Amino acid sequence: MTKRMEHDLLGEREISNDVYYGVQTKRAQENFNITGVTLSQFPTFIASLAKVKKATALANFNLGLLDEHKKSAICEACDEIIGGALHDQFVVDMIQGGAGTSVNMNANEVIANRALELLGHKKGEYQFLHPNNDVNKSQSTNDSYPTAFRIALFEKIYELTDSMKIMQKSFARKADEFKDVIKMGRTQLQDAVPMTLGQEFNSYATMIGEDIQRLIESQQLVREMNLGATAIGTGICSHPDYAHEVEQRLQEVTGRPFVTAKDLIEATQDTGAYVQISGVLKRVATKISKICNDLRLLSSGPRTGFNEINLPAMQPGSSIMPGKVNPVIPEVVNQVAFQVIGADVTITMASEGGQLQLNVFEPVIAYNLFNSMNMMIKAFETLSTKCIDGITANEEHCRNLVLNSIGLVTALNPYIGYENSTNVAKEALETGKSVYELILEKKLLTVDELEDIIKPENMIKPRCINS
Amino acid sequence: MTKRMEHDLLGEREISNDVYYGVQTKRAQENFNITGVTLSQFPTFIASLAKVKKATALANFNLGLLDEHKKSAICEACDEIIGGALHDQFVVDMIQGGAGTSVNMNANEVIANRALELLGHKKGEYQFLHPNNDVNKSQSTNDSYPTAFRIALFEKIYELTDSMKIMQKSFARKADEFKDVIKMGRTQLQDAVPMTLGQEFNSYATMIGEDIQRLIESQQLVREMNLGATAIGTGICSHPDYAHEVEQRLQEVTGRPFVTAKDLIEATQDTGAYVQISGVLKRVATKISKICNDLRLLSSGPRTGFNEINLPAMQPGSSIMPGKVNPVIPEVVNQVAFQVIGADVTITMASEGGQLQLNVFEPVIAYNLFNSMNMMIKAFETLSTKCIDGITANEEHCRNLVLNSIGLVTALNPYIGYENSTNVAKEALETGKSVYELILEKKLLTVDELEDIIKPENMIKPRCINS
Amino acid sequence: MTKRMEHDLLGEREISNDVYYGVQTKRAQENFNITGVTLSQFPTFIASLAKVKKATALANFNLGLLDEHKKSAICEACDEIIGGALHDQFVVDMIQGGAGTSVNMNANEVIANRALELLGHKKGEYQFLHPNNDVNKSQSTNDSYPTAFRIALFEKIYELTDSMKIMQKSFARKADEFKDVIKMGRTQLQDAVPMTLGQEFNSYATMIGEDIQRLIESQQLVREMNLGATAIGTGICSHPDYAHEVEQRLQEVTGRPFVTAKDLIEATQDTGAYVQISGVLKRVATKISKICNDLRLLSSGPRTGFNEINLPAMQPGSSIMPGKVNPVIPEVVNQVAFQVIGADVTITMASEGGQLQLNVFEPVIAYNLFNSMNMMIKAFETLSTKCIDGITANEEHCRNLVLNSIGLVTALNPYIGYENSTNVAKEALETGKSVYELILEKKLLTVDELEDIIKPENMIKPRCINS
Amino acid sequence: MTKRMEHDLLGEREISNDVYYGVQTKRAQENFNITGVTLSQFPTFIASLAKVKKATALANFNLGLLDEHKKSAICEACDEIIGGALHDQFVVDMIQGGAGTSVNMNANEVIANRALELLGHKKGEYQFLHPNNDVNKSQSTNDSYPTAFRIALFEKIYELTDSMKIMQKSFARKADEFKDVIKMGRTQLQDAVPMTLGQEFNSYATMIGEDIQRLIESQQLVREMNLGATAIGTGICSHPDYAHEVEQRLQEVTGRPFVTAKDLIEATQDTGAYVQISGVLKRVATKISKICNDLRLLSSGPRTGFNEINLPAMQPGSSIMPGKVNPVIPEVVNQVAFQVIGADVTITMASEGGQLQLNVFEPVIAYNLFNSMNMMIKAFETLSTKCIDGITANEEHCRNLVLNSIGLVTALNPYIGYENSTNVAKEALETGKSVYELILEKKLLTVDELEDIIKPENMIKPRCINS
Repeated sequence: MTKRMEHDLLGEREISNDVYYGVQTKRAQENFNITGVTLSQFPTFIASLAKVKKATALANFNLGLLDEHKKSAICEACDEIIGGALHDQFVVDMIQGGAGTSVNMNANEVIANRALELLGHKKGEYQFLHPNNDVNKSQSTNDSYPTAFRIALFEKIYELTDSMKIMQKSFARKADEFKDVIKMGRTQLQDAVPMTLGQEFNSYATMIGEDIQRLIESQQLVREMNLGATAIGTGICSHPDYAHEVEQRLQEVTGRPFVTAKDLIEATQDTGAYVQISGVLKRVATKISKICNDLRLLSSGPRTGFNEINLPAMQPGSSIMPGKVNPVIPEVVNQVAFQVIGADVTITMASEGGQLQLNVFEPVIAYNLFNSMNMMIKAFETLSTKCIDGITANEEHCRNLVLNSIGLVTALNPYIGYENSTNVAKEALETGKSVYELILEKKLLTVDELEDIIKPENMIKPRCINS
Repeated sequence: MTKRMEHDLLGEREISNDVYYGVQTKRAQENFNITGVTLSQFPTFIASLAKVKKATALANFNLGLLDEHKKSAICEACDEIIGGALHDQFVVDMIQGGAGTSVNMNANEVIANRALELLGHKKGEYQFLHPNNDVNKSQSTNDSYPTAFRIALFEKIYELTDSMKIMQKSFARKADEFKDVIKMGRTQLQDAVPMTLGQEFNSYATMIGEDIQRLIESQQLVREMNLGATAIGTGICSHPDYAHEVEQRLQEVTGRPFVTAKDLIEATQDTGAYVQISGVLKRVATKISKICNDLRLLSSGPRTGFNEINLPAMQPGSSIMPGKVNPVIPEVVNQVAFQVIGADVTITMASEGGQLQLNVFEPVIAYNLFNSMNMMIKAFETLSTKCIDGITANEEHCRNLVLNSIGLVTALNPYIGYENSTNVAKEALETGKSVYELILEKKLLTVDELEDIIKPENMIKPRCINS
Repeated sequence: MTKRMEHDLLGEREISNDVYYGVQTKRAQENFNITGVTLSQFPTFIASLAKVKKATALANFNLGLLDEHKKSAICEACDEIIGGALHDQFVVDMIQGGAGTSVNMNANEVIANRALELLGHKKGEYQFLHPNNDVNKSQSTNDSYPTAFRIALFEKIYELTDSMKIMQKSFARKADEFKDVIKMGRTQLQDAVPMTLGQEFNSYATMIGEDIQRLIESQQLVREMNLGATAIGTGICSHPDYAHEVEQRLQEVTGRPFVTAKDLIEATQDTGAYVQISGVLKRVATKISKICNDLRLLSSGPRTGFNEINLPAMQPGSSIMPGKVNPVIPEVVNQVAFQVIGADVTITMASEGGQLQLNVFEPVIAYNLFNSMNMMIKAFETLSTKCIDGITANEEHCRNLVLNSIGLVTALNPYIGYENSTNVAKEALETGKSVYELILEKKLLTVDELEDIIKPENMIKPRCINS
Repeated sequence: MTKRMEHDLLGEREISNDVYYGVQTKRAQENFNITGVTLSQFPTFIASLAKVKKATALANFNLGLLDEHKKSAICEACDEIIGGALHDQFVVDMIQGGAGTSVNMNANEVIANRALELLGHKKGEYQFLHPNNDVNKSQSTNDSYPTAFRIALFEKIYELTDSMKIMQKSFARKADEFKDVIKMGRTQLQDAVPMTLGQEFNSYATMIGEDIQRLIESQQLVREMNLGATAIGTGICSHPDYAHEVEQRLQEVTGRPFVTAKDLIEATQDTGAYVQISGVLKRVATKISKICNDLRLLSSGPRTGFNEINLPAMQPGSSIMPGKVNPVIPEVVNQVAFQVIGADVTITMASEGGQLQLNVFEPVIAYNLFNSMNMMIKAFETLSTKCIDGITANEEHCRNLVLNSIGLVTALNPYIGYENSTNVAKEALETGKSVYELILEKKLLTVDELEDIIKPENMIKPRCINS
């Protein structure tokens, strides 16, 4: 293994010629041994860094700040990385100090060394192309890092909504399949009034559909980026036309409508968009967790629970109880939801902790947002394919529960009044008699009237009262 | 004190004739003695309940379900309550079981009894006008309570953004006042590069402006309401035209663009909008807390801190240290932010805990959202009038810090390169010499070049490099 | 209304002679209009402040720093406050800036003015007895405020554990009552193996018993106080013997074993004990919430749920569904739990935000800890008296569920092995046949063996296997 | 690659003969593809599982339930795993449904197959030694999994406190080194009164010492385990002497004082200990975060901040600002603290979500507790060696700040009273004159008196007042 010497503010360090990163990445690797999870596991983020570096190189070239050779080499190196190459060279721990400087320098160094090779030089010959002076030209970590972060978030939101559309469709298919399964609705875990299982599953599809909408709206929050801000938003060391130029190039490179923030000083310190997106992820998590709780409840039993639906069996449920099958897929999705909700608190604290011109805690924000979204994507696809799609209904049991219920009395309200209805309900509960029986016994309605009113099919939607 | 007898499912209870509420409110009052904070302290919410009851009475009347006399009496009672009357009759604890049934019944009973009086009857003579059969007609708690909640949220968001606009203006005025105060920007609490104090304060104004925008967007989330859903969303006990009719009447009564949810079953169980609004409140809290942290830091001293600005003295700061003045206003705003962030976790758990056709925990969600918003409104007005408006700058001290700083070296990057600049910075720090001195000593630039580049005024924006 | 003039660092203010507080309290009242909840609503905290002031007066007197007259008057005023007097004079908002200075000055001023009256002077004649020089002698807010806070916490923990003991006994009584009610245990909401309802309720009693133990342990964390620290822990302005002397006097006055922290600088800035106590409250909340979830689940129905137990009916459950009774008491307790869990986040952020020699955010910590504990105390007493004590069991239904269940097969494991048992369970589920039937059909055991093994009574504890 | 066929409740599956795990692990691996983080990355947890399996084998043997050959083979396989072997065979995702069944079965299968080899059989020949019937004998997931979890937690707490002791010593050494460095103490970021830098650093050592103590106390909470509970705590399928026997064997195998819970039903469902330990971890995180905030503040500058101390430079701080060095190590530790605090919310929700006889969400609790502790251990060692140990003081600057400060006036309180002192402070601030000057000018004290009182060295501890 041959080596090269590199130096920085702190002095010299030997670097293996096998690696594309340089001295600053090396120091970061040594300084931050925290999670064991490195940037290399987040390919969308790495590609986004390369997109930023490519866009800035193009802008610098167009403004006459970078020569043709350097520009071409940098762009080619970036394209390789966008294509999936060299990701293993991104070795910095996802939780790191320095506000992302180590991630930015990791990118600068890898790109510089790969570009040097493309130019026929050796790694480390920075006199020909320099990580800071060339690859990082007109930039600071404080604008290039958050911009890359935003590009990656933008893409990830699409991935997430794709996984949600799968779930939504799964629920919609089941809603259709179960549209004639009459069952009791429950409020506060107490028998309420009839509905169909199709209506119930459709409400889940609707819920997910709304959440997709909210995510797409939140995606707009990261369209605004701060390239041109450089160190603190004043644009120091940048050409007056640079901000506009790089905005155009970034749109080209990404194919996405990123725009430059109007107040770059504000944009450089502000992490509000991350907090809000995390809040929307938390909303989604909360809803999916509620849905999973419902699925577990509706499938409880088989003999001593609600037993309205059956989840597909995915694995034996117990090391001691033979034949037991558990709702393991909803259970794992619940846990992902808890993870996302906890991550939101981490992100909130990191955001609140920002000081003055910069929020130094963006790395932990990025780590948690990406983790949350990655887990959700996997969990949602799992839920669709390994659970929802295989759900079956116990139709007869569902109907029997309705016929046996006291909740039917609600439908009588408009005919006999709340107080009469209350008395019938009370007596039914105390005596075990059916509502049907009691209404007739008390001559509150005729058989025909009653039959018509409490037919479950007539109770699942609004209805004209013949008075 | 005369009394009347009222009865419900559980039996009879004596009720004082002094009060407008009835037996169900009475039971709720006894059952829920938790916070000591009652509905009566939330006038916007009470008025919103009355608006719902008025709109439903009008809709019922138009559909021929309620006679003219009853409708008029109910509407008049509601108008009185909207106008501020009888708020002391709303006695239910804000944290309560029953998914808001007690709040809804409190409204039903107060309105019924007041309407009875208006019709020339006595309180409790429900044979003439009934809390359930008439005031609550075509409704369930599960649609009328959340609709009132949403109306109140809609109004509260306006109140909140009003208080934020005051803050925004205060910061904008100061930004203008301080536009020529040159100071050092700081990243990671370390000296970075120059900026103006005006830029810094302007970034706060921008930040608040963006947050106002986000709140206005979030307001849209509560425009969708579920009147017509009745018990679980199927519309049981309601007329087929009712949902549409009541939507129109609600728009009239409130003057706000409320619309009926398309999937009423989903809308009845869903609390996603509350979680998301809470997430946006948390975003706002996080940002204001960050701003307050900055204000405390920038005013730290007077002799051993940053001392760039002075906050107005509001009270003696210490019972032992004479002459000490503390940043008490930002401190109290920080604490409000922590309160809002904690409330978000409460709201999240309450939302996640909803089961099947209803979320029974809406009361704790309402309590926390209203509390958070009320505290924020007061805190933001306090911050504007008792702190921001009185801030002064220590202009000379700010400028001296810049001239003495090493960060000036950043501006030399494009002229002498990152590595030369690094060496100058390092030597300046080690020797105590100024950057200016060293550059000339090393003949890296001429006096004229240098003077031009490191003039602070030239460092606070992008700049063409004369190469 | 006569008035007096008072002055402080910021100048003069007119104060009504009706009030015992002075200019600094007045300013605080104006500065902090945030929650509307004032110190006056926290009597234990007020009494604790008076205990601190009494103990310090005694210590100052013993060291010759305060004369007999002043000491006696201060102590008498304190005793009145400890006895419940003048609590309405504590008017500062619970969320306030200034690290508690306003609370401390509120106490100093009220005590000084009352002591002045006792000495025959008028309010405001501070030349005879001064809020700072005399009542606050040898103290700073930074030691007297947290010490009072800790005394109040110590007492509140006793109140809380008392309310938990009531719950524990309620559950224990029910455990005894239900000791012969055989029912199915459930894991993951799926039928598991038999147990008794008594065992289930006993587990709740055990759980609460353990939590009481944990609270009593946590109480030890606030025994350590920092009187003698004065401003930052160095003891500036205090006599070298003062810290020891005041420790003794505080023990006398409170009758509790408070001790002086060994490192007063650490003790003055440290809020770890509050975070940990909040963590224990959160533990308790989590457990009680789980118990309430269970109660709601076990009483779900009456016809379409588990229906194993009945909770006492506390109020009509619905404004539209006649006869519906909801588990409103567990529901309200759940919400208190969510509130406590949210408060823990607030407390954590406040603690993390402390800087250098002091945590300025103690007021929001105090507000939340006291609020959480007060709500828990009320909620737990409500749960005991309005819910647990009235629970009844549906014994026959419980037993029928067991006999009908597949989970019985688990008991056969040691006799026929996990795989045979699995096959029986599977076939039972698919065919609807009973486990009993299938075992005999397959001749896996004789009738006698089987009868003996799957008798529910034999399944609720360990058992020798006759092999 | 040869294969074998294995079957379970769901049917047959081909398993590669390269792997020691079997069909149930295989299914779990496929079902739970969530985090990509598998059990194999948690060696302490794997070893703890093996310890449980060894202890239960020994207990079963002693009770005559397992023959000598099987016992020996199981124990040998367990010993190998405890020694570090086969960890790569633990392939289940850390976030999983099923309450740990997959982890337990992973252990059962790996141990069974390794034991089969040791007995001269092939993997999968379960007729000779069975994962459920033999390795899992007398157990359920519901007792063996949480017991292994607790053993691992017990060990991890030792690792964590070891890392804290290193930090504590680092701070104590610095406290000693800085014991004569006089500096200003600050409260609310405002100048307060003098202290030494040694006192400040000593307070950090004290703080960490207390937190170590709290962790050691919390360790006691996991000593109680529930082996013998089997499925739900009733001990079904276990020998009456088993619980006692296995308690003894577990103590032997682990060398730790684990004891059997008295109420096994409660112990099986209860996750309170995890919540509380997480609460203590959060306490520790909060405190360390505060310390890191202080270090960043005290080292702020170098020219425009507090600049009292210098942190060792670990890496260049900026890609654009030459010579900038940032406090990257405290920054990364702050982020670990936020991660731990977020994890606490996840753990709380998972705990609250437990239902009836079991908490199905223990896997996410385990994942977060282990993650938090692992990150803290690494972060704390990093903080000690890469930051604290290299801190230096700017002694002269610290002293100059004191001499220039107004806070000196506090020491005059006992001599000239709070109001005179206040006036001097006010005038000093307004005029820029020194306190010293003004006191003499106003003839409030003689030069000698004054010199003696405001000598910084006399102000850092209590002091007799010569009155």
